[in-house]
Amino acid sequence: MLPNLEQVQVRSFAPARFHNPLVGLRSTFVGEERVLLPSTLGELEPYLQAGHLPPAFEMAGPRREIFFDPDQTACGILTCGGLCPGINDVVRSVVLTLTYAYGVRRIYGFRYGFAGLAASNGLEPMLLNPRVVEDIHTKGGTLLGSSRGPQEMGDMVETLQKLGVRVLFAVGGDGTLRGASALAQEILRHGLEIAVVGIPKTIDNDLLWVERSFGFATAVEEATRALEAAHAEARGTLGGVGLVKLMGRQSGFITAHASLANSDVNFCLVPEIPFRLEAFLQALEQRLRERQHAVVAVAEGAAQEMLQVGIERDASGNPRLGDVGVFLRDEINRYLRGRGLEFSVKYIDPSYIIRGLPANATDSEYCLALGQYAVHAGLAGRTDLMVGHWNGHFTYVPIPLATARRKQIEPEGELWQRVLGATGQPDMS
Amino acid sequence: MLPNLEQVQVRSFAPARFHNPLVGLRSTFVGEERVLLPSTLGELEPYLQAGHLPPAFEMAGPRREIFFDPDQTACGILTCGGLCPGINDVVRSVVLTLTYAYGVRRIYGFRYGFAGLAASNGLEPMLLNPRVVEDIHTKGGTLLGSSRGPQEMGDMVETLQKLGVRVLFAVGGDGTLRGASALAQEILRHGLEIAVVGIPKTIDNDLLWVERSFGFATAVEEATRALEAAHAEARGTLGGVGLVKLMGRQSGFITAHASLANSDVNFCLVPEIPFRLEAFLQALEQRLRERQHAVVAVAEGAAQEMLQVGIERDASGNPRLGDVGVFLRDEINRYLRGRGLEFSVKYIDPSYIIRGLPANATDSEYCLALGQYAVHAGLAGRTDLMVGHWNGHFTYVPIPLATARRKQIEPEGELWQRVLGATGQPDMS
Amino acid sequence: MLPNLEQVQVRSFAPARFHNPLVGLRSTFVGEERVLLPSTLGELEPYLQAGHLPPAFEMAGPRREIFFDPDQTACGILTCGGLCPGINDVVRSVVLTLTYAYGVRRIYGFRYGFAGLAASNGLEPMLLNPRVVEDIHTKGGTLLGSSRGPQEMGDMVETLQKLGVRVLFAVGGDGTLRGASALAQEILRHGLEIAVVGIPKTIDNDLLWVERSFGFATAVEEATRALEAAHAEARGTLGGVGLVKLMGRQSGFITAHASLANSDVNFCLVPEIPFRLEAFLQALEQRLRERQHAVVAVAEGAAQEMLQVGIERDASGNPRLGDVGVFLRDEINRYLRGRGLEFSVKYIDPSYIIRGLPANATDSEYCLALGQYAVHAGLAGRTDLMVGHWNGHFTYVPIPLATARRKQIEPEGELWQRVLGATGQPDMS
Amino acid sequence: MLPNLEQVQVRSFAPARFHNPLVGLRSTFVGEERVLLPSTLGELEPYLQAGHLPPAFEMAGPRREIFFDPDQTACGILTCGGLCPGINDVVRSVVLTLTYAYGVRRIYGFRYGFAGLAASNGLEPMLLNPRVVEDIHTKGGTLLGSSRGPQEMGDMVETLQKLGVRVLFAVGGDGTLRGASALAQEILRHGLEIAVVGIPKTIDNDLLWVERSFGFATAVEEATRALEAAHAEARGTLGGVGLVKLMGRQSGFITAHASLANSDVNFCLVPEIPFRLEAFLQALEQRLRERQHAVVAVAEGAAQEMLQVGIERDASGNPRLGDVGVFLRDEINRYLRGRGLEFSVKYIDPSYIIRGLPANATDSEYCLALGQYAVHAGLAGRTDLMVGHWNGHFTYVPIPLATARRKQIEPEGELWQRVLGATGQPDMS
Repeated sequence: MLPNLEQVQVRSFAPARFHNPLVGLRSTFVGEERVLLPSTLGELEPYLQAGHLPPAFEMAGPRREIFFDPDQTACGILTCGGLCPGINDVVRSVVLTLTYAYGVRRIYGFRYGFAGLAASNGLEPMLLNPRVVEDIHTKGGTLLGSSRGPQEMGDMVETLQKLGVRVLFAVGGDGTLRGASALAQEILRHGLEIAVVGIPKTIDNDLLWVERSFGFATAVEEATRALEAAHAEARGTLGGVGLVKLMGRQSGFITAHASLANSDVNFCLVPEIPFRLEAFLQALEQRLRERQHAVVAVAEGAAQEMLQVGIERDASGNPRLGDVGVFLRDEINRYLRGRGLEFSVKYIDPSYIIRGLPANATDSEYCLALGQYAVHAGLAGRTDLMVGHWNGHFTYVPIPLATARRKQIEPEGELWQRVLGATGQPDMS
Repeated sequence: MLPNLEQVQVRSFAPARFHNPLVGLRSTFVGEERVLLPSTLGELEPYLQAGHLPPAFEMAGPRREIFFDPDQTACGILTCGGLCPGINDVVRSVVLTLTYAYGVRRIYGFRYGFAGLAASNGLEPMLLNPRVVEDIHTKGGTLLGSSRGPQEMGDMVETLQKLGVRVLFAVGGDGTLRGASALAQEILRHGLEIAVVGIPKTIDNDLLWVERSFGFATAVEEATRALEAAHAEARGTLGGVGLVKLMGRQSGFITAHASLANSDVNFCLVPEIPFRLEAFLQALEQRLRERQHAVVAVAEGAAQEMLQVGIERDASGNPRLGDVGVFLRDEINRYLRGRGLEFSVKYIDPSYIIRGLPANATDSEYCLALGQYAVHAGLAGRTDLMVGHWNGHFTYVPIPLATARRKQIEPEGELWQRVLGATGQPDMS
Repeated sequence: MLPNLEQVQVRSFAPARFHNPLVGLRSTFVGEERVLLPSTLGELEPYLQAGHLPPAFEMAGPRREIFFDPDQTACGILTCGGLCPGINDVVRSVVLTLTYAYGVRRIYGFRYGFAGLAASNGLEPMLLNPRVVEDIHTKGGTLLGSSRGPQEMGDMVETLQKLGVRVLFAVGGDGTLRGASALAQEILRHGLEIAVVGIPKTIDNDLLWVERSFGFATAVEEATRALEAAHAEARGTLGGVGLVKLMGRQSGFITAHASLANSDVNFCLVPEIPFRLEAFLQALEQRLRERQHAVVAVAEGAAQEMLQVGIERDASGNPRLGDVGVFLRDEINRYLRGRGLEFSVKYIDPSYIIRGLPANATDSEYCLALGQYAVHAGLAGRTDLMVGHWNGHFTYVPIPLATARRKQIEPEGELWQRVLGATGQPDMS
Repeated sequence: MLPNLEQVQVRSFAPARFHNPLVGLRSTFVGEERVLLPSTLGELEPYLQAGHLPPAFEMAGPRREIFFDPDQTACGILTCGGLCPGINDVVRSVVLTLTYAYGVRRIYGFRYGFAGLAASNGLEPMLLNPRVVEDIHTKGGTLLGSSRGPQEMGDMVETLQKLGVRVLFAVGGDGTLRGASALAQEILRHGLEIAVVGIPKTIDNDLLWVERSFGFATAVEEATRALEAAHAEARGTLGGVGLVKLMGRQSGFITAHASLANSDVNFCLVPEIPFRLEAFLQALEQRLRERQHAVVAVAEGAAQEMLQVGIERDASGNPRLGDVGVFLRDEINRYLRGRGLEFSVKYIDPSYIIRGLPANATDSEYCLALGQYAVHAGLAGRTDLMVGHWNGHFTYVPIPLATARRKQIEPEGELWQRVLGATGQPDMS
């Protein structure tokens, strides 16, 4: 079921009171264009039959009239959660666009996520300008630092008011965006005019209404290098098993896409497709007997039901996962040891190498666009929204809609069917 | 204007006579699903108002019933035109999918494009199987070799018949696809049952109804390396100008996307956006006076009206272009020489390095999918079609629709507006 | 103390009976040239004072007269021990040089190390020729497969005789070379004319009289990528500690060189330089208090005395090491937890990614030379030797001399002094 | 003939008057150690027979006593000539070592080479410190900018005196080093106490007494990518010829090493080995007839005698070369056109891409060392010297000795013999 028209409507300060400084420099502004949520005839048909317009997102882009006066507006930006290739590209793009397109002259970089917004932590914000951010995209990580978890709401609003920040950009994942949404709503409740704009960051690519999140292409690229190494190890010994754990707490997108980019993977294990351990081990043994080596890619969130997982959660509220990579390595060793086969399991966990990379060209371009469109949204007075990408267009999406649940691989969908075709793995459910 | 329903209809041999060998192994087959051509409310509205269904492509994927008996079917594949990262990935995917998914046992690799299909050239086809193609995707180029230009129609049909080829896969660009379409229609006219399936290859990304062609992500990635080098050269001397010519005969997509991925570009020149030479040179001079260096990215097809171009055409029928890179280098030198500035122009043409690269992960996955879907189409009896990608789905597109004209950058569209935002280049028209 | 003249003398079958087929094609053959072991005046002086010639290695290269008749000679090659970038380059170079330079027509690739030489294992050798090895260097790993540990001597000699192998090339590390030397000596004892030529493979670069072993440059290159990621993680959070474990069982060369190539490392821990855990932890805490983040690079063989290590050994006879990376991660967490600091430790173990890479250009060239010189040695009848590199020249080194002990970092030497200069780490002994 | 003892003697201000601030922090200082110039017994023997000590370089490293008082010493650094991977690494290393090892507090970065030292040009120096240089090594090019050619001597000395600069570091090639030497001697003539330390930069690796210059490993790595692309192009068409022009004005080291790292090169053409055009073209034709494709690597300085070269020189005094790449491309086309072959020549010139890259790990480590040793030399009062690398040790080499002539490939030496072995190219002289 697609969301209804109200759910796709972005909140906005109104009325727009200023001319966009781009007027006269650019010929094109975005007006009433909207991007269809349906992409197939099947999704569209119920609306056609009911005689209703289908739901459609506001298209991202500069508006001819804006809400905030760039001359009088300070802006802030913060980055939360785990590292992801491209964070610095986004920060750089926001700063360059604020400066060169709109002439905003005061930009604060809050340190270590929401923590830097709560005065009680004593973390002074950095002053950002084009010179400071000029080359930061050539390094991975985040210039501003990051942290997990929320801060006291009043404390944060007070900081924004004290510094005169009128638009806050928050780069982060599911938890961060919920936090940003709560902050935006608190601000609205107080009748303040401060916009909060989210820029979705999830290396797992598991946010709804975002076709591909930034950093994802880089992550898949590097993940395939780990898979190539696993393949070399596997082929290098009799009965070689190369086992690679990849990121993906609730969604196996990195693992699935990397298994398609490196078509030497024989078993692709993701959270969305449960499997029986015994069935997997038997299939693995059969593969070794027939072909002498095997490559296994597993998402960190797979097979969690087999692990003795407590209910501990990290500061972002994500449940702590058991280590499925170590678990599988040990189980494979245990199982094969009694089977009269020569074998050797090599286990690779490249997660922290992947997260800390600079963005590749695909992601770098994407981050630039996210920063540009986030700035256009914020100055136009949109709030409680994030920049999305849907059906080939950048969009503005209400945060509550995007965080309603996680995006996941559909077992019947084309992605997983392609994985089955490429790996040739049997049904192990 | 979007095409009408008839124009999006793929031709097909019918009725399907065999069960897909995947039945029992996979749960999902593609039925009547269709992918919308419109992606915005504005594009959809005329259809809503007229009470018509909007045009929609057939969705790519395996069909439960197929036309050709895999046991009795030989297949062929050929690659045409210039090199492009990923050709070997496509060949490999076609061979692996034919073999493992369908059990096809005779696969011919025709040498050097259509030339290998014309017996008169004496080029024996290679026999392809999984072992032959196992590692070919780790090398750039094309295992099969390539050539440009058409061959005698009857000669090609005779070869296909003699070898018992029932499905021919043709990997190539605009010209190749037209050739494949002509061949498919000639075959239909003779009442023969041989399917011709196109796999679109255009490093310029200029084919209609293909959101992103294979090799394009790799090309942009490498193009940004050239731009980074140009930036280093430009910053390294007083008045440094780094000038990079990139591929793009009629469409500036590589140049535009690379200029967004490497945001140090100050001037992005593409065929779709004419400029006056004098305006460009003056803007360049002003940039040098203010910032001491500049980076210029130019698509090979830009500014052709300024060059003394004849009407020569290459074997594919593409007009031979004048060398805009050398032209601009000389014009910049000529113009600046008299302006009392210290300056130095460094000119880079990375085209042949880019074309010959192996595919990156993004392209490699994409090529795998193209090969898989091409095989599903061919065995199901579709002909005179190519595999497309639209609104997030793989599709089957009649070749005549895809080759009706070139895809180009729209001056008012979001891509070019983002380029203007990133480069800050003035209006030079 | 440098070895004496006898110790540097390579054993050789004599007299040379055939003209080198290169005669007439190449102008240069190596005659009596020898490469000095001393490289400083201090090392040379004792010999000058005593009026003795200093020790000098036989220089590698083709000999005008050779011992084996290429027309009648079958050759074999095998690869042992862990993966290392460049193994396939070496195999390829041996095959190409045997074929094109000498015209050898039968080349066996024994599977999975010495195991493939013992008939009892039932592993059929591969037949190698230029077509088979053409592109293998573009993949990491080893085409032939590898294993650890010795095989029964008589079994191996019998295989060599049965197949008519006259020259055996063994690619491997310390253990493999000892095995090759034992085999060579057994062969000599039996009065057989079979040469055994070692090609030193040690990703740790810990073989004597080999300035830099193949794969080492690639390993350091990739290790710096892990260190960059660790740096990004460390800078990305308050109190971030990036901890990277690198290869180096008894010698810290990879860790030291990577710490110099990536000069963001603050603590470089190697087996040769013992440290007190408490001193390290205190220095780390101080660094975090002053600079908020730290990067630690540790060689796998460091701090072994702190770990509860048993006396288990692997099949090559190497002692199994305790996991110093996991140990340090836990100790850092334990220590910092009580210190009133915010902190976060990110641990990276890139070893299996590094080992499985294809060789970079530096290593690829080096591997080509090793293969060329190994072939020149073998056909000339040299045996029980390995190809070394010393004072800028390729050399022939008796295996017993090279395996007498491990090469290690000298605490007073220039390498370690440069590390101290770059990291600024305090004395923690 | 090796140089005599006097020629290897570095000039030095004396006596050393201050304790090295490293005393107490480091255990090791360099005393009287010297590095042998001879590396073979053959080179050593004349000295043994004559009863003379062989020539040996002063070993690089920190001295226990130094000449300049770090507290009172300002230092300067400049970079000259063409770009080369690693320049920023060197600048960074000099700044970090001056600051952290010696406590020097004023460091000037002169802009655009010697031009920045001549007040008349009005180019203000940058103030350098660890924060400014922290991440510069991740970008190619030179932070300081570069230029070619000399400046007026008195003007430069005056700037140094006015700013209180006591040690000047000059990063550059043959011409720059001559300039630095002239400046050092002018300073000595005036009885001033200003040291001039050269850091050899030559992407061509053509400086005497420097085994491998910085940037060279990176250049070869990237050059092989161009050769791989050329190989893909060559194999991709009937009669494909991939032609790559590489750097190397008077010495073909990049071309030779890249031809060894990428062993698909069939013809390697360098300045040191003259060839007849007709012989080359005939051999190329024969290769095409036998194998259908060929890869040609040519150094920019090769075959200059065939080109209509004037006597123009650039600002560094280097003669302007004719473009051998374009020349060969045209000659191959001209020759083959009449030979009844299908063929296609693809020409690649990657020079400006290579020059502008950041350094790889091998070069990055090497640059760090060069900077460290240059600082040790300068503070110890050495002048008119450069840092060299010989027989595995870093050394101090009088500039006049290093610039006496260019290092070149020896036709009879092991490098060229390996090239002949790898390419299989015939004698074309």
